[in-house]
Amino acid sequence: MKIIDGGVCAAKGFKASGVYCGIKKPKSDNLNPNYVHKNDLGMILSDEICNTAAVYTTNKVKGAPIVVTKRNLEKTNGKSRAVIVNSKNANTCNADGEEKAEKMCAVAAKELGIEPEEVVVASTGVIGQILPIEPIERGIGPLVKALSYSGNGEAAAAIMTTDTVKKEYAVEFELGSKTCKIGGMAKGSGMIHPNMATTLNFITTDAAISVPVLQKALGEVVKITYNCLSIDGDTSTNDMVCLMANGLAGNGEITDCGKDYEIFKAALYEVMMHLTRMLAKDGEGAGKLIECFCGGCPDEDCAIKIAKSVIHSTLLKCMIFGEDANCGRILCAVGYTDADFDINKISVELKSEFGAIKVCENGLVLPFSEEKAAEILKSDEIQLYIDLHQGDGHATAWGCDMTYDYIKINGDYRT
Amino acid sequence: MKIIDGGVCAAKGFKASGVYCGIKKPKSDNLNPNYVHKNDLGMILSDEICNTAAVYTTNKVKGAPIVVTKRNLEKTNGKSRAVIVNSKNANTCNADGEEKAEKMCAVAAKELGIEPEEVVVASTGVIGQILPIEPIERGIGPLVKALSYSGNGEAAAAIMTTDTVKKEYAVEFELGSKTCKIGGMAKGSGMIHPNMATTLNFITTDAAISVPVLQKALGEVVKITYNCLSIDGDTSTNDMVCLMANGLAGNGEITDCGKDYEIFKAALYEVMMHLTRMLAKDGEGAGKLIECFCGGCPDEDCAIKIAKSVIHSTLLKCMIFGEDANCGRILCAVGYTDADFDINKISVELKSEFGAIKVCENGLVLPFSEEKAAEILKSDEIQLYIDLHQGDGHATAWGCDMTYDYIKINGDYRT
Repeated sequence: MKIIDGGVCAAKGFKASGVYCGIKKPKSDNLNPNYVHKNDLGMILSDEICNTAAVYTTNKVKGAPIVVTKRNLEKTNGKSRAVIVNSKNANTCNADGEEKAEKMCAVAAKELGIEPEEVVVASTGVIGQILPIEPIERGIGPLVKALSYSGNGEAAAAIMTTDTVKKEYAVEFELGSKTCKIGGMAKGSGMIHPNMATTLNFITTDAAISVPVLQKALGEVVKITYNCLSIDGDTSTNDMVCLMANGLAGNGEITDCGKDYEIFKAALYEVMMHLTRMLAKDGEGAGKLIECFCGGCPDEDCAIKIAKSVIHSTLLKCMIFGEDANCGRILCAVGYTDADFDINKISVELKSEFGAIKVCENGLVLPFSEEKAAEILKSDEIQLYIDLHQGDGHATAWGCDMTYDYIKINGDYRT
Repeated sequence: MKIIDGGVCAAKGFKASGVYCGIKKPKSDNLNPNYVHKNDLGMILSDEICNTAAVYTTNKVKGAPIVVTKRNLEKTNGKSRAVIVNSKNANTCNADGEEKAEKMCAVAAKELGIEPEEVVVASTGVIGQILPIEPIERGIGPLVKALSYSGNGEAAAAIMTTDTVKKEYAVEFELGSKTCKIGGMAKGSGMIHPNMATTLNFITTDAAISVPVLQKALGEVVKITYNCLSIDGDTSTNDMVCLMANGLAGNGEITDCGKDYEIFKAALYEVMMHLTRMLAKDGEGAGKLIECFCGGCPDEDCAIKIAKSVIHSTLLKCMIFGEDANCGRILCAVGYTDADFDINKISVELKSEFGAIKVCENGLVLPFSEEKAAEILKSDEIQLYIDLHQGDGHATAWGCDMTYDYIKINGDYRT
């Protein structure tokens, strides 16, 4: 497997674009220091019809675009050609939400000469404000005109809200004699919590793979990547991961869970894990990435629960921000995890590029060098290694520290 | 029912005291601007043996004092005479934790001339640091000497950690021809989340009531007061509510769930609800109290879950801090509640001393006056009224906004 450039355009036959159509304020009017790019409308188009898998937010309040995309994919039995997505307005909790989301599909389909139900639609931004459709109607011409096999960066910029950097990742891998590619883009960076989806993610591949197997692979990989990400514990209403496979790599279509499936899934994991890591590192206001590896658990589900509990602890997040090795908080967060395990064998290690130190053993906090711990915590990527010493279950969760900037961003998000 | 002074000394036959013994740094050495009182060792003593009920943290990591108190109350079948409690050090996750907690009981019992198992022991503070026993041994003489029927304030000060104000509340009520009193003290103010206990609370009453009925009343009232409190989502390892009843009011002992039980429970609710509200208002770094009333639910459990989900939302907390009526976040937090209900009938009202405004109806965000909403959010006590319009279940949860100061306090808690 090889890391390559190109994001959602890395795989054969995928074009993308992004433009500013006027849903976001013009950059000159915006006072938010985290406001970095003016694109607010993005598109992905495949040269061929794609087998498409998707997972959606578990929130009972579902954004209108979620409802419409789900319905479209049901109508087409999981086929799509294009994605249209806007940022700044979530088109959620509005009386005319579905109508507007349908309109986005219709406008895109007309300009592309495809069917409206072949369009995946997504929105991200403020909940409960009417989506202005005129900017999208005006913007669709330029957006389609801008489509190119290297337009991935412009599309990735169009989905950014409080994100400070674009998130793209792609890999190349072999299936039989064929070279396949898989690439994606994602946006965060608040209202993110592991209960499915938690963010907008679009992944494209030229591998040939049937719809049910594609959906299975997506579900399995989401569980151990995006669903192990927590920025703030809030599960958004709009989040979606959409995976499109156009088959242009020419491999024999994957229709069962054999060897090719495992190879494909490993490549998908690589892309989604790295996007997840990027989302955590660019969490709202984040100064530091926190990766929590939890091993030695009775099973994987237990490991996932513990790793997520730790990552989600506000006190742990503040401790990492403050570079203060108050390690009892790690044990505390493990202890309130709703899972069945024995706390008394647990060991914990803090790690970073600056070293490693064991801080807990047999359920007890060890005496350790505060100086060394402080040194380790100076890094902007902190690893916690938790071992329960009672089985083979393991998992990783990703999060970030809690900073003054998170509060600043979210105390006044709408301006 | 009448509000009275006296905290844990309000009820007949209860003395209390608090001293500085040297576990906390002297005030002159402390740079934390939230460090307000030097007491670090507190005591409550009843003239007569008390029927005693307690509830403890649900965290798998349990502080040594929790283990020892639980064992003591089992040995005595729920009888106790005294409480000893220290702040600054949680005596948790230490190899010698139980030994030290037993020692605290022994030292107190010897000085008081009672049995060690008649002592309730509690600690709050940093997890995973060895508790120095010498200051307690030195302090026990002065502590017992200071016991008085008006020592409640000194005891309430001794349990403070990052608390900025003492929390005490007491009421007087009638049982038959007898006047009874019930009063309490509590400490917060971080690592607080509704999964039982979540804080140290000591409540005393002179009502006569049997151990099992006392325990039942405590359990029922905890469910709708302390367990509906969230400061930061972290469930501490050390938290405990302890309720002592010495019977000196002379009422006929309450041994069943009749009319007297309901009267007693109403008084207990009054005390615990007000202490809960105080804890929320003084949450770490809190600028504003948030009270979330949730009604019209299929049942009470559903109402509790929704109210807690809203109070716990980091984004909602930031929105209240920023005085920015980004009301989609309220619907979002209701929507990810793990309970069975229909989101489509929901209405939401924002209220404070400065007015009220309906912001959501039938599951949709309404157009509303931003100026009026901003005016309402200027208050330091904000009420959210959520109505699901599908039943009679209702509940209230209490929390606070998320501020820069929370992060400041918890980024560097141990110094």
